[in-house]
Formats: sequence, C-alpha cells, structure tokens
Amino acid sequence: MRRSVEAASSLFERYLERARRRIDTALDARLPRAREEPRPLHSAIRYSVFAGGKRLRPALCLLACESVLGSSAAAVPAAVALEMIHTFSLIHDDLPGMDDDDWRRGRPSNHIVFGEGMAILAGDALLALGFQTLAASPLGRAKDPRALIRIVTEATGTEGMIGGQAMDLLSEGKRTSLKRVLAMHARKTAMLIRGSLLLGAEIGGASPGLKRRFSNYGLRIGLAFQIGDDLLNVRSSRKKIGKAVGSDQARGKATAPGAVGVERAERESERLLREARRIAKGLGRRAAEFESLAVFLGKRTS
Amino acid sequence: MRRSVEAASSLFERYLERARRRIDTALDARLPRAREEPRPLHSAIRYSVFAGGKRLRPALCLLACESVLGSSAAAVPAAVALEMIHTFSLIHDDLPGMDDDDWRRGRPSNHIVFGEGMAILAGDALLALGFQTLAASPLGRAKDPRALIRIVTEATGTEGMIGGQAMDLLSEGKRTSLKRVLAMHARKTAMLIRGSLLLGAEIGGASPGLKRRFSNYGLRIGLAFQIGDDLLNVRSSRKKIGKAVGSDQARGKATAPGAVGVERAERESERLLREARRIAKGLGRRAAEFESLAVFLGKRTS
Repeated sequence: MRRSVEAASSLFERYLERARRRIDTALDARLPRAREEPRPLHSAIRYSVFAGGKRLRPALCLLACESVLGSSAAAVPAAVALEMIHTFSLIHDDLPGMDDDDWRRGRPSNHIVFGEGMAILAGDALLALGFQTLAASPLGRAKDPRALIRIVTEATGTEGMIGGQAMDLLSEGKRTSLKRVLAMHARKTAMLIRGSLLLGAEIGGASPGLKRRFSNYGLRIGLAFQIGDDLLNVRSSRKKIGKAVGSDQARGKATAPGAVGVERAERESERLLREARRIAKGLGRRAAEFESLAVFLGKRTS
Repeated sequence: MRRSVEAASSLFERYLERARRRIDTALDARLPRAREEPRPLHSAIRYSVFAGGKRLRPALCLLACESVLGSSAAAVPAAVALEMIHTFSLIHDDLPGMDDDDWRRGRPSNHIVFGEGMAILAGDALLALGFQTLAASPLGRAKDPRALIRIVTEATGTEGMIGGQAMDLLSEGKRTSLKRVLAMHARKTAMLIRGSLLLGAEIGGASPGLKRRFSNYGLRIGLAFQIGDDLLNVRSSRKKIGKAVGSDQARGKATAPGAVGVERAERESERLLREARRIAKGLGRRAAEFESLAVFLGKRTS
C-alpha cells in the first residue's frame, strides 16, 4: 500500500519538477533585469521570485491546459503571471505590519534584505507585472480575451487572496470556529489555486461543465493544502519549513488545528482530499496527475 | 490679462467639478460595501477613496474620450479604475516604510486610522480592483480589448508609478540633478496622467497620430503637475496641502526646487505648460479644456 501511494504521488511530483524548469526560464525572461534602473527594486523582485518556490500554481495552470487541449505551450505566460502574483502575496504577508516574518523558505524575508519600502514596492510591482503579463498572454482557445484577467482578479482581490489575508490579520488572537477558518483559507489560499486551474482550463478551451469540475477540485485541493500548512507549522522543524516552529500559535493565528485540534484538522484534510480524488477522475487527459496531487498533499503531512 | 487667465483656467475647473460627481457616484457603486466582510478592509478602502480627491485622472480619461468620440459614457468604468489605482499609490506612499506621512489631504493617513497591515491590504485590493474594473469596462471603439489593461499596467509598473516611487525612495538624502528628478517625476506621476488620457483616447477610438499627441501632452502636464506639487510643498501652509510644510525638504526628498532652486523649477514648469498648451490645440473637440488645464496648472503655483 505504502509503495502504491509513493508511486501515485510521485507522478505529480515528476510533473511539478518538469514544470518548474519551464516556468523558471520563462520567469527569468519576463522579469526586469537586475542591472536596469531602479536596480534595488528589480533585485528585490528577483530575490523573492527565485527563492526556491515549488511553482505549484503555474504547474496547475499548465496541467489544466494540457488536460483539455493536449498542449500547455499557450499557457506558459499565464502560468508565469500566477507565480508573480503569488510572490507578491508572500512578500506583503511577511511585512512587519502583517505577519512580521523575518524568514521565508530558509532565507531572510524580502524586507529584511531590501528594507520595508522596497519590499512593499516589489510586491506592488509583481502584482502589476502579473496583470501586464496576463494582458500579453496568448489566448489559446479562450473566447473572451478579458476572461483571463477576470479569473485572476477574482482570485486576488477582496473576495480572494487579499480579502483572506485581511480576515487572517483580523482573526489574530481570537478564538475562531473551523467554519470561519475554512472561509478564510478558501479566500487566502484556495481561490488562487482554483484560479490557476481555471486559467489553464480557459486557455485550453474547456467546456463550462469541465470548468465547474476544475473549480470544485481546486477549492478542495486549496483548502487541504492550507490545512496542511497549518499542520506543518504545528509540527515541523524550522529546517523543514524555513521559519520558526509553531509561529502561528505564537502569533495567535487562526488555524484549523488551533480551532479543532490536530486530529480533527487531519480528518478534515483527508475528507477534502478524498473528494478531490473522486472529482479528479473526470478532469480530462491529465486526470491521473490530478489524482496524484491529492495523494501527494495527503502524504505531505502524514 | 489676469481676467482672461481666470476665464481660461475655470473652463477646466468646471469640467473637473462635473466629472467629480459622475466619478464619485460610479466609484461608490463599484467599491465593496463597508458592511460586507471583511469590514475593516472595505472601510479602509472607502476611507481613502472618499477623502476629497479632485478626480483629475478620471476627468482626463473622460475628457480624452469625449474629445474623440463626442461622448464619455463608455469611459466611466475605466475612469473609475484609474482613481482606484491612484488611491492605491497614495495609501502605500504614506506608509511608515515609505514616505511615512501621518497626514493626507488634511486627514490622518490610512495606516494611522486602520493600522499598517490593513492599509497595505487596502492598497493591494485597490490595485487588483482597478484591473478587475478595467477588465469589465465597455470597450467603446477600442479594437483590442486588452489594450486598456496594457495602457494602465505600463503606467503603473516598474516603468511607471511604482518604479518612480522606488527611485524617489532611493534618492532620499542624496544630491540629485534636475534631469534625474524629471526622470523620476515622469515615472511617478506623469506616466499615469498620460495613461489616463491614452485610456480615454483608446476607448474613444483615437487615431495613432492623435494618441501620440495625447501622450506628448500628458507627459508635459504630468511633469508640470509634479513640479507644482514640489513648489507647493516648499511654500504652502499645512492648511492648504494637508500635510506639514516643507516635509519634502525635511525628509531629504529629491524635488525640482531642491535640485535647481525655486526659480529655475518655476521656469521649467512654465516651459512644459507652454508646450502643453501648444499641443492641446490639436487634441480634438475638447482642445479648449485641455488648454485650460495647462493654464490652471500654471495658476496653481504662481
């Protein structure tokens, strides 16, 4: 059994590894050079974009496009835009006025290296550059050119990531129900994971029914991913996640294990991943990879 | 002579007053309600958007559209998006890690009222909402639906407002040439003024030649506007500009009067406005209003 779980999860891991290389090359080509003015801004942008991210969101975008269209070449710029916008959120989340994290992925946070002002601007620039990149993306089989922008702004704005981060800040130090934690995780994390799939599906020309399926799958994967992060934060060593152990608890963050304990949080994550695996079976040519991601996420915290 | 300057400048002022009311109504309809969750985020957004802004950028967008098309109704959502993005920049510029201004337009800055974290997020949300609003804007006579996004991201990103603010931060406390100050003002201020005109012109279906003319006019107006702000900061009372007198000097900001003295800065502004008035004559049906704006900006600091 263990062996088949390994095999199932490694299918997605192999895809992720291949996608990472494509994305990193495209990101490098698309970002302003560090030697162009204003240099510290461009260095700050590149520091956080090339900080060892897994490129999960771009990979999901490529995978969804491939699953529908058979090829993901048209989705590469859109995938790059997603990573820019994801990196914007990481830089801003770490700021002293927000989560005040000095470390990210085992390295000093952006504002520690470049100062608070430059970190704020690097985040702002990545958000703008993400939309600029999307507006120059090939359309593939997308019918409405502005649908791409709409998918990503919905996932990013007050009903998505930014609204979720506000809920996160506001819940600090308060007792929070699992329902409210999940509503926050949905906006803060799941909306952009879902948006990444929808973006790839849109470029691939997916039917409305298939898009709904991607949406349902993405929300579950996204929620399970964030609950997994909560669980890792409770358990892992600094080495593994690159920041202080139990930092969520120390800051009174609203988390799934904080709301209902580790065991019930694990059960919630397992339930979501079970549903995701079931939905994954109908996700087109890359169904096996989507199933594999659900297995992979389950393994990550078990 | 004085009387004719009054009459010429008031033509634009009257347009601005009418545009302000249209824009405020459309902004109110488009922004998330303060009673919807997360409430503090939405309150922070509305606090800064409705802080008595002149709505110069939206008015320029409407005016450019009207000048080409004869009507500006199609440009209202795009104009609203510009004000959202402008307000994002004001909120972030005031943050302690940036210009550290406790006051804006005679009221406490966003972060003073809502805290740093919520102010960062309110700015982020306005930037995302600006692009969301643009992606839902009517196209008018624009041929490429994504041209609207491209015009605004160019004006906002590392080659526009955000890059300019980075140059501004980096120049603090350093001796700076007029050339460098103008390069910074061009990105920080003039690019979005120009972008506002280009956006309206695009929706109005302007010819390439007319768009170039709007671009040339916008850069000059934008530079003169920012030099005017520099001059006001040196001279005016706190009451008039809503922040401490001479705050630029106290912070060692790079400004035009700081680089070459008040008199040469005034001459530079007059030169730019003279050129703008000349270009304005060829800007279509609303040429008189565009000329009037140049007169208005000259009057502001004289």
